[in-house]
Amino acid sequence: MSRTSPQPGGPTRQRLIDVAIELFQRHSVAGTSLQMISDELGLTKSAIYHHFRTRDELLSAVMEPLIAEVEALVEAAESRRGARARADHLLVGYATLAASHREVVALLTGDPGVVALLRTRQEWADIVARQLRLFADVEPGLGGQVKAAVVMSGIASAAGVDYKGDYNDDGNSDGGGDFDEAALRDELIAAGRRTLGLRAPHGGG
Amino acid sequence: MSRTSPQPGGPTRQRLIDVAIELFQRHSVAGTSLQMISDELGLTKSAIYHHFRTRDELLSAVMEPLIAEVEALVEAAESRRGARARADHLLVGYATLAASHREVVALLTGDPGVVALLRTRQEWADIVARQLRLFADVEPGLGGQVKAAVVMSGIASAAGVDYKGDYNDDGNSDGGGDFDEAALRDELIAAGRRTLGLRAPHGGG
Repeated sequence: MSRTSPQPGGPTRQRLIDVAIELFQRHSVAGTSLQMISDELGLTKSAIYHHFRTRDELLSAVMEPLIAEVEALVEAAESRRGARARADHLLVGYATLAASHREVVALLTGDPGVVALLRTRQEWADIVARQLRLFADVEPGLGGQVKAAVVMSGIASAAGVDYKGDYNDDGNSDGGGDFDEAALRDELIAAGRRTLGLRAPHGGG
Repeated sequence: MSRTSPQPGGPTRQRLIDVAIELFQRHSVAGTSLQMISDELGLTKSAIYHHFRTRDELLSAVMEPLIAEVEALVEAAESRRGARARADHLLVGYATLAASHREVVALLTGDPGVVALLRTRQEWADIVARQLRLFADVEPGLGGQVKAAVVMSGIASAAGVDYKGDYNDDGNSDGGGDFDEAALRDELIAAGRRTLGLRAPHGGG
């Protein structure tokens, strides 16, 4: 176990981000210190400071790529015609994102530290509000807003669950508790469509 | 601002629990110390120790009544005949509980500190697992499990949202952003039934 300063081949920014995601999930954002992250990697705190000055800077780096993907999705969805087509476009993209970034997405809706950070980053809060509105616009009033909240949080949480049983469609019996990302994505989309009252498009609408 | 020892008419157990819920929500469980709770109430730490030795003891006291209600619900649901009737009975009770205990229920599913505590209390983890199974049994395979997770987490999160607009059915215009608990409960039930593919029972089934 060596305690080293930053050096070529040393700790990359990405390794710090990966360990941060793991510890944020296990201890929540507020329960994770930069010290804990450096301990986990066997580094000094100054090796982290080279990349991130504060925990919120590190959290921002975790969230940034995800928020950028959501923004692109929201913009593509908003360009569609009709509330149902817009909601469905966003749902398919969001479920795909959730299935392929299970840990980060689960963090995004559940952790008060993330909620607090969103409050300080107006442009991020705006993206989340636009996403919620696209889902809520399918149905007027409180019913639409409640279903939008169920879909947003429910999909994020459900993506992070460790499902038991062999749900892999590939026919290989490669030892239970297994399912592929595509199967999870499809089930998240099916659940979201049910909740919002959307039908699966026929052909490729 | 007085710093007092426990005394008649002083800090009650319930006041500590109420402040804890507020701080757990704002800072997450891991981000809240007994010190922060005593500061919030203007008390010494020893005044808290009189009631709770550790943060987990306090968190347990927050969760205990809620888990007891869920257990009663799960038992009543399990006594019904048919997977759909069982799921619907549980859904109605869970949505009612979520609408009337919005803050605590939101905490229950989102916070890693709560998840960690559940892991150490096997009898609580068992109740949550039975609840999830009752929802999942409506549909076989991964689809049923994903929809159960969306309903469990989605309802808990959606109950905690601060909805904008005047959704109060009572006809009084008592200043926007208002809706009653019954309206929220009904919308949570409607969303859950959609997700699980349950119909509203006719008459009083």
